[in-house]
Amino acid sequence: MSANNTDDVALLLIDVQKGLDDPDLGRRNNPDAEANMALLLAEWRRRGLPVIHIRHCSVEAGSKLRPELPGNDYKDEVRPLPGEKEFTKTVNSAFIGTGLEDHLQRSAISKLVIVGLTTDHCVSASTRMASDLGFDVILVADATAAFERCGYDGRQYAAEDIHRVNLVSLDEEFCAVRTTAEVLGALT
Amino acid sequence: MSANNTDDVALLLIDVQKGLDDPDLGRRNNPDAEANMALLLAEWRRRGLPVIHIRHCSVEAGSKLRPELPGNDYKDEVRPLPGEKEFTKTVNSAFIGTGLEDHLQRSAISKLVIVGLTTDHCVSASTRMASDLGFDVILVADATAAFERCGYDGRQYAAEDIHRVNLVSLDEEFCAVRTTAEVLGALT
Repeated sequence: MSANNTDDVALLLIDVQKGLDDPDLGRRNNPDAEANMALLLAEWRRRGLPVIHIRHCSVEAGSKLRPELPGNDYKDEVRPLPGEKEFTKTVNSAFIGTGLEDHLQRSAISKLVIVGLTTDHCVSASTRMASDLGFDVILVADATAAFERCGYDGRQYAAEDIHRVNLVSLDEEFCAVRTTAEVLGALT
Repeated sequence: MSANNTDDVALLLIDVQKGLDDPDLGRRNNPDAEANMALLLAEWRRRGLPVIHIRHCSVEAGSKLRPELPGNDYKDEVRPLPGEKEFTKTVNSAFIGTGLEDHLQRSAISKLVIVGLTTDHCVSASTRMASDLGFDVILVADATAAFERCGYDGRQYAAEDIHRVNLVSLDEEFCAVRTTAEVLGALT
């Protein structure tokens, strides 16, 4: 991602929506994730690089991300500007039931920098599928975040552990895991 | 998965291949995973339920799963019988570049019981995509396994931790995590 080959690197923001602030979701790690997404978004806009927003429009009964609810709205830090590409989805992967793959191919975009929520659900599913479809992916560790979970095995798993292990499983197989500072540094 | 609605439940075996015995892959958890896969496979065969084998044919230079290498071969415990459906793949998800989704739809198979290797790479990628494509998935915890990994953060992650956290992230969002005994019990 050196200065002379950045023109086909898109910033893909996944499910950065107000409904994911619901306290029922439990404790989250990376409280600065949205601030880091905003730093990356500002730099992408400043350079005129492609920005793609993915918004989850849930069809599940209890979800805060249903399209008619206020939780469906983008968080203020990443609200799309007119002209920025948006796709809506109803499942975890940003590539299923959307025009994302076609759009990337038509736009000759082969590299993605992925940020958003949550690390282990929609971010992981989208990162895996992006890689399997042939895109080069950088996943930004401190611009993603996970929630704590009670496991199938009855154990409680901390958000930071869920986050890290999911990144470890993705790194080198599906993507390169980097920090916001590393991505910004590589652009300049 | 009661006795009267099992006829559309396929057993999907992912990447159960000799090359994954390579000691360079490090320590693995669940040494009995293959024995559990064999128990499930025997019961699926006894009942005449659909069995689908996925074989990874790597295009990566250093992989033991390249098609011309002995490691590409199925492990003896799960070797396909004549007439059992097989698909080969070159990426992690069993649904990309294969006819698997079409085959399932044409065969009116809406439910999958997934076993195989490895939990965090091809099993997770395939489970996520199966769910996102609309299939009901049971993932068998003790008929899957993971390897230890050195993380992007410099920490060493034990195989059992990689395995469990990946299952926790999949459970209830993409699948139901069950044991071999639970799956066999639900069939009988």
